Amino acid sequence: MTGAPEPGPEGGATPPPGPRPQGPDGPPGYPPAAGGTAGPAALLPLLRQVLEALAAGAARRGGPIPAGPPAAVAEQVREALAAAPGPDALARLVELLAYGSADPADPACAAHLHCPPLAVAVAADLAVDALNPSQDSWDQAPAATALETALLAELAALAGYDPARSAGVFTSGGTESNLMGLLLAREAVLGAGVALDGLPSGVRPRILASEAAHFSVQRAAAVLGLGERAVRAVPVDRALRMDPAALAAELAATVREGGRPIAVVATAGTTDTGAVDPLPEAAELAARYGAWLHVDAAYGGGALLSDRLAPLLTGIAAADSLSLDWHKLGWQPVPAGVFLVRRAETYAPLARRAVYLNPADDEEAGYPSLLGRSLRTTRRPDAFKLAVTLRTLGREGLGRMVDACHDLARAAAEAVRAEPALELATEPQLTTVVFRYRPRTDAPAASDRLNGELRRALLRSGRAVIGRTELPGTGPGRVRLKLTLLNPRTTPAQVARILAETAREGRRLEESDGPSGRG
Amino acid sequence: MTGAPEPGPEGGATPPPGPRPQGPDGPPGYPPAAGGTAGPAALLPLLRQVLEALAAGAARRGGPIPAGPPAAVAEQVREALAAAPGPDALARLVELLAYGSADPADPACAAHLHCPPLAVAVAADLAVDALNPSQDSWDQAPAATALETALLAELAALAGYDPARSAGVFTSGGTESNLMGLLLAREAVLGAGVALDGLPSGVRPRILASEAAHFSVQRAAAVLGLGERAVRAVPVDRALRMDPAALAAELAATVREGGRPIAVVATAGTTDTGAVDPLPEAAELAARYGAWLHVDAAYGGGALLSDRLAPLLTGIAAADSLSLDWHKLGWQPVPAGVFLVRRAETYAPLARRAVYLNPADDEEAGYPSLLGRSLRTTRRPDAFKLAVTLRTLGREGLGRMVDACHDLARAAAEAVRAEPALELATEPQLTTVVFRYRPRTDAPAASDRLNGELRRALLRSGRAVIGRTELPGTGPGRVRLKLTLLNPRTTPAQVARILAETAREGRRLEESDGPSGRG
Repeated sequence: MTGAPEPGPEGGATPPPGPRPQGPDGPPGYPPAAGGTAGPAALLPLLRQVLEALAAGAARRGGPIPAGPPAAVAEQVREALAAAPGPDALARLVELLAYGSADPADPACAAHLHCPPLAVAVAADLAVDALNPSQDSWDQAPAATALETALLAELAALAGYDPARSAGVFTSGGTESNLMGLLLAREAVLGAGVALDGLPSGVRPRILASEAAHFSVQRAAAVLGLGERAVRAVPVDRALRMDPAALAAELAATVREGGRPIAVVATAGTTDTGAVDPLPEAAELAARYGAWLHVDAAYGGGALLSDRLAPLLTGIAAADSLSLDWHKLGWQPVPAGVFLVRRAETYAPLARRAVYLNPADDEEAGYPSLLGRSLRTTRRPDAFKLAVTLRTLGREGLGRMVDACHDLARAAAEAVRAEPALELATEPQLTTVVFRYRPRTDAPAASDRLNGELRRALLRSGRAVIGRTELPGTGPGRVRLKLTLLNPRTTPAQVARILAETAREGRRLEESDGPSGRG
Repeated sequence: MTGAPEPGPEGGATPPPGPRPQGPDGPPGYPPAAGGTAGPAALLPLLRQVLEALAAGAARRGGPIPAGPPAAVAEQVREALAAAPGPDALARLVELLAYGSADPADPACAAHLHCPPLAVAVAADLAVDALNPSQDSWDQAPAATALETALLAELAALAGYDPARSAGVFTSGGTESNLMGLLLAREAVLGAGVALDGLPSGVRPRILASEAAHFSVQRAAAVLGLGERAVRAVPVDRALRMDPAALAAELAATVREGGRPIAVVATAGTTDTGAVDPLPEAAELAARYGAWLHVDAAYGGGALLSDRLAPLLTGIAAADSLSLDWHKLGWQPVPAGVFLVRRAETYAPLARRAVYLNPADDEEAGYPSLLGRSLRTTRRPDAFKLAVTLRTLGREGLGRMVDACHDLARAAAEAVRAEPALELATEPQLTTVVFRYRPRTDAPAASDRLNGELRRALLRSGRAVIGRTELPGTGPGRVRLKLTLLNPRTTPAQVARILAETAREGRRLEESDGPSGRG
């Protein structure tokens, strides 16, 4: 009973009958699997094709993103998909994917929390794809089950949790982790298995998050049946951190108006500016009102890897639940999200007994189950690539990469300050720099339009992929440009060149006959 | 501004200053990235290590799963993680993951909807990991954005939807797809952005699904704030299909009791037996009550690839939404779930405007956004591996694999019938065979205990990974064994050997001094 078709010990006397002739890798006509004893040999020539096509596509792209409008890439994709099936599809489509990517390994690709993954993490992840473990039952993932459990304990300790009392799971990212945190908050405060339509009238569940929190907080409230309007936006200070006095006032107002604060969401590293909300104050206020504290550290959690930056997250261990994303400051391929709770018992509302996955007698016999840890059922071990990365580089190796990106952001802020046409929005906190091109006629509408067009002009020419956002309450205009610096191999000179090109493009747009409607 | 540190056209005059010396792959001390022009060369030696370690681990395992108790694998994992960081971690941990896997490419690994992925799909997926596109904005995934859109149209047509009117997204699997279907049902029937705690009193939303439907329906109801008890279980017929008369009765009773039927969930291929609910009748009844029809075809959707089996799904195109999983009958590595809606406009409640991802002026300028298609934000293109697979093998190539697994299930059912100690539960519908070992003393409790122990004995000895479930309403006992046959390379003789070994193990357990408490 092994992968080989030769008669095994039990079946030695039984020649394989049946209609299908047997080859060393199964009957002809069925293409090879990636697993089994024959999988590695079948993979090697295909992987070589992939690597060649990746190199060819990157060379054809010749920069951070393909030049041209979106319709041009889409047309190439449609043509490629219209080709007849055949063995050249792999090389052809990989070359096209590589050509048509915004490659975060290019120093001029610096728009989003979109990291260039480490080669070692990508290589490790290939093993996961080939073996295809699924963590909804032990008998689909024996080693992966143990590995995720052990790695989560390590990550819990990194965040200051007691690893023996905490629990967690790998997720698809901060959005899923935030949903889980708010789901457990809802169950903890309103009762496990709550049907919201059956709540006593007058109980109005509310979530408090800063106005700079990620939009996934609203989205989670909507999914959870609370409605987006259940989220109350707490004002931020000048550095875009939640203002503790404003949080206290909003909590008091919520209760006064008949609302029930079920959760406070504090952000440790906002998407745009890396601002870290005051965690100890948020914890104290949440506790005072009987609310759950969820800390969204999807971005800022990477600071835990750095001795220099970890103090920014002081107080994080008071959170009832946490979001961490190792596909941001952690250099993993997407996804490598992590959700953690401080006290494992608060996870109980997600416990599930499925007779085909974790029957009680199997659990009594010592077979562990992670089914109740996730909102998913089928689930690949995304922990594996991170475990390999941490065991290859250590926390120190990753911490040096975090520090390098932080250094780069500070250097970029200096370069913005040195360029009169650019204006820094706030001091960098983690690894992002937010700024704008300052038009000669500095009216809000003109600034917003010009900055939006400027970004698209860089994108369309294939020169640079820079970010764009809007900041609350800072004038003139709201649109800001952004460099999210997640590539430790990028040099300050390369960043300075992007900024110089940005300023040049802004002048070019102003000098042409005024900004046109379309960027 | 390319990945290479050599001065580019814009920066030709600026030698890279800054504190860090430049090598061809960036400063020393930062390990190589998988992307960029240098990525493929950095990956090759690492991939070789992975393939060697995969082969070594599979050889050490020597069967479908490592022999021994779960604690033994966990101990090896703990030891491996305790080692000091260093460059040997990749090979060491991959070997351990391969050893400690339940490998679905082994013919004796046949418990779950856990397929042996195709080598070509795994190779394609490596490109995704290396390039790390993220589909929450076009400027993180130009080609991938176009490719997912085109592939979803193709899959919609396969299901009988009008591709120009439908919409969808790749998901982590049936559980997420079912959640999305029921979320859109809730919004469609109760109003977009509904806050359930604000519903007029007396509106009690209800979901109707058969008692054989997947547990993720209850889980979705809980997440959505409806509570698990919002799901009413509709009785099944002998073949474990939803009984249309019973559905009609349950809908009438729901309304009579003041409930509001928001959704009917029909299953096209139940997890255990592959039973397909009567889709045309479910559609007609859902429409009559103003309820949304969601069809969970996570398993049975694979039948769309086969001319022989596609007629089982007649009526599926009437569904308002659909779950399909290509990591089941589709031979993709996890995840390759798909969610589709018949009418794109029903997706509107998920639309999102995020100023840093899809600002209105970018969309007006022709930059498409998939942000509103998914419950996630960061999202890798899981469509790519399926696109490459379909373009390599065609629907016909995959259809032959589906037919081979269906043949195998029928052969397995014959083999069960031919073995007096085994008893078939139902005729195979798709690719699963459900049966039990019939003990000499055939009392319900004895049968249940013996079958549970028998499965664990096979597992613990490393001989075979077979499934176990419980069926509603069929005696004696409820525990059943299960082969889920998803490997077209497996021969009927290999399946017969697993069944013979199962019968032998049952006799062995009975002949030892009676079943002991622990399996």
